[in-house]
Amino acid sequence: MTDTLKNQKKIVVQKFGGTSVKNPERIKSVATRAIEELKRNPKLVIVVSAMGDTTDKLVELSKELSTSPNPREYDALISTGENISAALLAMCLIDMGVDAISLTGLQAGIKTEGPNSRSKIIDVDTTRILEELNAGKVVIVTGFQGFNTNYDTTTIGRGGSDTSAVVLAAALGSPECDIFTDVDGVYTTDPRRVKDARKLKTVSYEEMLELASLGAQVLHPRAVECAKENNIIIHVRSSYSNEDGTRVKELNKMEVNKPVTGVTVNEKESIISVLDIPDEPGFAGKLFTRLAEHKISVDMIIQNVEKELTNNISFSVLEDDLEDAKAITETFAKESKSGQVLITNAIAKISAVGVGMISKPGIAAKMFSALGEANINIKRITTSEIKISCAIDRSDAQKALEVLHSAFDLANA
Amino acid sequence: MTDTLKNQKKIVVQKFGGTSVKNPERIKSVATRAIEELKRNPKLVIVVSAMGDTTDKLVELSKELSTSPNPREYDALISTGENISAALLAMCLIDMGVDAISLTGLQAGIKTEGPNSRSKIIDVDTTRILEELNAGKVVIVTGFQGFNTNYDTTTIGRGGSDTSAVVLAAALGSPECDIFTDVDGVYTTDPRRVKDARKLKTVSYEEMLELASLGAQVLHPRAVECAKENNIIIHVRSSYSNEDGTRVKELNKMEVNKPVTGVTVNEKESIISVLDIPDEPGFAGKLFTRLAEHKISVDMIIQNVEKELTNNISFSVLEDDLEDAKAITETFAKESKSGQVLITNAIAKISAVGVGMISKPGIAAKMFSALGEANINIKRITTSEIKISCAIDRSDAQKALEVLHSAFDLANA
Repeated sequence: MTDTLKNQKKIVVQKFGGTSVKNPERIKSVATRAIEELKRNPKLVIVVSAMGDTTDKLVELSKELSTSPNPREYDALISTGENISAALLAMCLIDMGVDAISLTGLQAGIKTEGPNSRSKIIDVDTTRILEELNAGKVVIVTGFQGFNTNYDTTTIGRGGSDTSAVVLAAALGSPECDIFTDVDGVYTTDPRRVKDARKLKTVSYEEMLELASLGAQVLHPRAVECAKENNIIIHVRSSYSNEDGTRVKELNKMEVNKPVTGVTVNEKESIISVLDIPDEPGFAGKLFTRLAEHKISVDMIIQNVEKELTNNISFSVLEDDLEDAKAITETFAKESKSGQVLITNAIAKISAVGVGMISKPGIAAKMFSALGEANINIKRITTSEIKISCAIDRSDAQKALEVLHSAFDLANA
Repeated sequence: MTDTLKNQKKIVVQKFGGTSVKNPERIKSVATRAIEELKRNPKLVIVVSAMGDTTDKLVELSKELSTSPNPREYDALISTGENISAALLAMCLIDMGVDAISLTGLQAGIKTEGPNSRSKIIDVDTTRILEELNAGKVVIVTGFQGFNTNYDTTTIGRGGSDTSAVVLAAALGSPECDIFTDVDGVYTTDPRRVKDARKLKTVSYEEMLELASLGAQVLHPRAVECAKENNIIIHVRSSYSNEDGTRVKELNKMEVNKPVTGVTVNEKESIISVLDIPDEPGFAGKLFTRLAEHKISVDMIIQNVEKELTNNISFSVLEDDLEDAKAITETFAKESKSGQVLITNAIAKISAVGVGMISKPGIAAKMFSALGEANINIKRITTSEIKISCAIDRSDAQKALEVLHSAFDLANA
């Protein structure tokens, strides 16, 4: 036996999302895949989401009974979707002759703290999981849920099953965690929009975080953060094939061969501008605090001094939040004796992301030139260490994606 | 404050069945009723079944994945329906301004033992229920479920929520348990079939057990047994009205004013007869043991000596079991060198039930005469202490019900 094979005799953690368990047929397919995996690794933990749109349906039911459901009861309700899929997968495996057991968040020892519906996992008591694994069982764990000091069920936020899986991998000493989903990996850009988009073999945690927050809904950002903290490799892959997907991991310099890893577009933001704000300290801090109190996230904040003594500030918000954000900003503008509040709709935010841009100057210049040559007007620019974002007209979004994908030579590895 | 009012300051246990919580509107109606109850009794425990056909749908899902689902996983699956309805009712009450909390079988301390899917409740640790009641909360408990020594969820058989409610009433020292359902009580016979059927104010445990086993699906027999053991009065009543229903309780002699309390009909049985069985000891025991091994219940067993040295045996089985029962019986008849196996289809079993018949002779004679006068031919007769059953042609069933309801003067209290 080679060292590599020896090392593989560890606990394997795999997570299957809602589309991967959406009906009995897909659950059988997950079970078949698990049986294949057992031939390579006898200790297998599977984390499941709720079937298809089960959780959405439960949320709808709760809305019919309360406009703001009690958080403890809301968690007791919406966590049942995972109980159902976990029990079904376990009974399917047992029916196929493989010993298996489903464990709830409580039974799996997933301790959480903080308010219901957005609790944080603080620890995993792996005693029972290890007992069941040692008894030769495949352990199916309900994603998305844990328990608190009252032994009440808690949930860790939508998309939390990814986080459950990564946390379990860390607690069980697995170096890698498979996240099976309905896409086969992370691409240089959305393959539905750009024909020669290329599947990435690897992507760094930081890049994945930027891509996730930019709308690439492959992985939940908290799962990526948690993997980074615990140095767990996340393998994002398709539940429809056996091919390798994309590994999210710490990249060493040798692995970074391009300054830009991917380009992405977000077409769900609008820009709010406040003109003629008084040049006093604290204006922006107060405004954004108030928006945050109303749970409105802001992005692309730009402050320009346009004239002596007064200046303008603009920022983008999600279109869903626009109405609320506008009302709050207008009230604040009045209170602070600022000028007009303007809305710019129909923008798109196009972003280039890559850890390689840190060490390579001129990437921003290249991006602006490429857009300029394509006659695409840039309305706003924001940058981070590994990301450059431009607000453009939404009608230019598709062209911009193609232009940048080509400019940064992303189709070729 | 009168003594009566003082006595009412106890814990009230109410159970709402699947039709009573089948949609958000009905759940709101249960919450409204609870708020009314709180004005009279501040300590309220509500046991709920799963919404409408939720459990059936979960059972169907399990069947798609396994022909004989693993019992532990089956219980983990089918118990989720009660988790959903309990959480929804709790959030509805909280939304209406009443503090409430849902508790699972585990959280409510409902300890069970025995195999999954037909576990028995052995004890209730009422600590948490009492804590929550003392904190001023309405406590909603999931019916149908408990937990075992592994802290795994167990279920106590279909219709088990009635039993959960009665057991909780006993554990919490309540003398009475309200069972809210979609009928408004127990009737002298099926009111859909006999126009002048009368709702009974009271019925004894023994009568209720006979009526339940004869097809009156108002209460689960185990719940009645459990109420009898613990001397809990079950108040069967409608979730659509505020009227009193029927109280199932120990009746003293003064309360029994008629020999027959109700008449009922079962049209789902067939008769199997084996002719010319050898007159050796043990034939019936062996045959019924073999049928029991295949989980086939038999009823109305009659053995006649027709000729010297040989005799016949006949018994009824549920039509759903007829095919299996016939095959098993034919094999057994061959092995034991018996004669022909005959099937009598299209029978109905009409029964008169009443604790009053113990002390009053001539009830059987009255029943046979009434049927005879109506030209209804009696094919089989069986009796117990408080029940007389006759097998008749199924085409005579409706007439027989009417004739007996009238002969025993059941329309008048």
